[in-house]
Amino acid sequence: MFCERHKYEIMIETDILIIGAGPTGLFAVFEAGLLKMKCHIIDALPQPGGQLAELYPKKPIFDIPGYPEVLAGDLVTNLMEQIKQFQPGFTLGETAKTIDKQEDGTFIVTTNKGTQHHAKAVAIAGGLGTFEPRKPQIPNIDVFEEKGVEYFVKDPEQFRHKDIVIAGGGDSALDWSIFLSDVAKSVTLVHRRNEFRGALDSVEKVRDLKAAGKINLVTPAEITEIHGDETVTAVTIEKEGEAFKLETDYFIPLFGLTPKLGPIANWGLEIEKNAIKVNNALDYQTNIDGIYAIGDVNTYPGKLKLILCGFHEATLMCQSVYNRINPGKRFVLKYTTVSGVDGFDGSRKEAEKAVVKAID
Amino acid sequence: MFCERHKYEIMIETDILIIGAGPTGLFAVFEAGLLKMKCHIIDALPQPGGQLAELYPKKPIFDIPGYPEVLAGDLVTNLMEQIKQFQPGFTLGETAKTIDKQEDGTFIVTTNKGTQHHAKAVAIAGGLGTFEPRKPQIPNIDVFEEKGVEYFVKDPEQFRHKDIVIAGGGDSALDWSIFLSDVAKSVTLVHRRNEFRGALDSVEKVRDLKAAGKINLVTPAEITEIHGDETVTAVTIEKEGEAFKLETDYFIPLFGLTPKLGPIANWGLEIEKNAIKVNNALDYQTNIDGIYAIGDVNTYPGKLKLILCGFHEATLMCQSVYNRINPGKRFVLKYTTVSGVDGFDGSRKEAEKAVVKAID
Repeated sequence: MFCERHKYEIMIETDILIIGAGPTGLFAVFEAGLLKMKCHIIDALPQPGGQLAELYPKKPIFDIPGYPEVLAGDLVTNLMEQIKQFQPGFTLGETAKTIDKQEDGTFIVTTNKGTQHHAKAVAIAGGLGTFEPRKPQIPNIDVFEEKGVEYFVKDPEQFRHKDIVIAGGGDSALDWSIFLSDVAKSVTLVHRRNEFRGALDSVEKVRDLKAAGKINLVTPAEITEIHGDETVTAVTIEKEGEAFKLETDYFIPLFGLTPKLGPIANWGLEIEKNAIKVNNALDYQTNIDGIYAIGDVNTYPGKLKLILCGFHEATLMCQSVYNRINPGKRFVLKYTTVSGVDGFDGSRKEAEKAVVKAID
Repeated sequence: MFCERHKYEIMIETDILIIGAGPTGLFAVFEAGLLKMKCHIIDALPQPGGQLAELYPKKPIFDIPGYPEVLAGDLVTNLMEQIKQFQPGFTLGETAKTIDKQEDGTFIVTTNKGTQHHAKAVAIAGGLGTFEPRKPQIPNIDVFEEKGVEYFVKDPEQFRHKDIVIAGGGDSALDWSIFLSDVAKSVTLVHRRNEFRGALDSVEKVRDLKAAGKINLVTPAEITEIHGDETVTAVTIEKEGEAFKLETDYFIPLFGLTPKLGPIANWGLEIEKNAIKVNNALDYQTNIDGIYAIGDVNTYPGKLKLILCGFHEATLMCQSVYNRINPGKRFVLKYTTVSGVDGFDGSRKEAEKAVVKAID
């Protein structure tokens, strides 16, 4: 990344570059910290937490050891609190695009926005991959992407006083229809069924807004064509066999996200069934020395895609990186009850020491 | 075990027999339960929790993923709550002594008290082993064991109206001196230093009880001889070079516990550095088919003795046992957020389903 202010290339320096800010990637920061190694995390999403934060923050998880039940969002909050003392860096909203191994065995990873990271080791904790929007089957939709077709609502202000058409029947479609009904000039919500699949109060709010004339609901129907020159000007809606054209400034299909391995698939890593093969008999390293893969993104004999397995893999990865960048030194992860935790922020956590006192 | 009431041998039947009720053994019950397998746990200690409950229940742990800090005792409580729905059986206060592999590949494990367990697979989650008392170097101490020499206070009533001598300078020695000062006829506490190493309020309570004449404190001193015929009648105490004899009914040395692998060391398992070798490239199985070792008791290249690693090993073990006892069936551990949890007690936990509702 070229810094306009400093007039030179900025390079983020770190010990371990973690790709993916899901629970596995976050917990790696803690174990690395115990070994005095600094971490930096890249994630395509605008906030840490991966699937847990993006897809189901309000859903309970039952198989985190020691938690009979924990909301996914709370687990992320707790992990962020646990790693705070090790001051991880974050490059959020960007996708790791290229990796270059240097002569000294270190790596430079560059994102889609040009941000560069220099690391002694790379840990891919990419989960199921980057979440890409499911696109509807409309022939010329690619032509209008970012020219009136938006798969995400990044900035609601973009739609102020505009005519918009939203398609979809889940929580995203319901929630954005509700929210944008106060922002846009008009909101048309198109869904191929009469039934919506979402939170009860969202469904009821949409019904009320429809009754109040603030949402134009068209069901069961589908968008079959997009019209426009430079940008979208109208869509064709097909309802029960009849097609009609509706003028609009934006078309926002919200059909959910689907995971893709993304650019990492081209890094020369051994891939099997959309996952990265690792050496589970030792340290979850890939076929490229210095690049590890941990959590749901990896595969090995007996692999289970569970968060608790990611925690273990992250820990063994950290120990392996430590041995790699500190040859000859012997420093092994031990019970924190005995060793305590020294944060990079100067904090110290430890079990209370027993009192030694004479009795006379 | 021969049942006096029913007049036949009782055999406890289970899918997985877990040896060791520490955090790894407890969590295995949960993952086995998700796969519809029943567990039974044997532990030498009188309560579940292993080291966490016995050695440091009030100490914080900092490296349980998702817990910035948790008291060891609370982690055990939470794990017991998490596995409750899978109704594990417990054989507590007994040590697994012998194992016999049956012709059908199942196992019979018998404890030191003769309790028999019949299981389709065995998972050794023995932690650092069985905790055995550290014995003082007194030549004839073995002769008087359970004849006046007691390494544990199992039933305080045993000491009512008796003269007792306690040796040691830690929390156990302090706490039992305090407790028994109200039960025994006399309590003499002998420690080789003037300083005690324990909780501040225990040290102060002993000082007060000494001042009140309820504890006879002898420091710096050591027990050098035990006297008696059938049972203990007196001990010799050496204090600053001078020896004197003190009449007593009991001598209770409380010098802490030291871990030993115990009878398991003779089961034909491959042992390395007091730990059991396992196949970490697959399922943490030992050299004996159907016997697994998980948590601190096992060893493999890159092994870290951390609780979170035990959780992962327990999980992969459960999946392997499932595949072993259900050949051909395909049932794999998945996110509980998606699959929910069905307890053996009829309970069902699951994420709230999205509402499907028509809007008209």
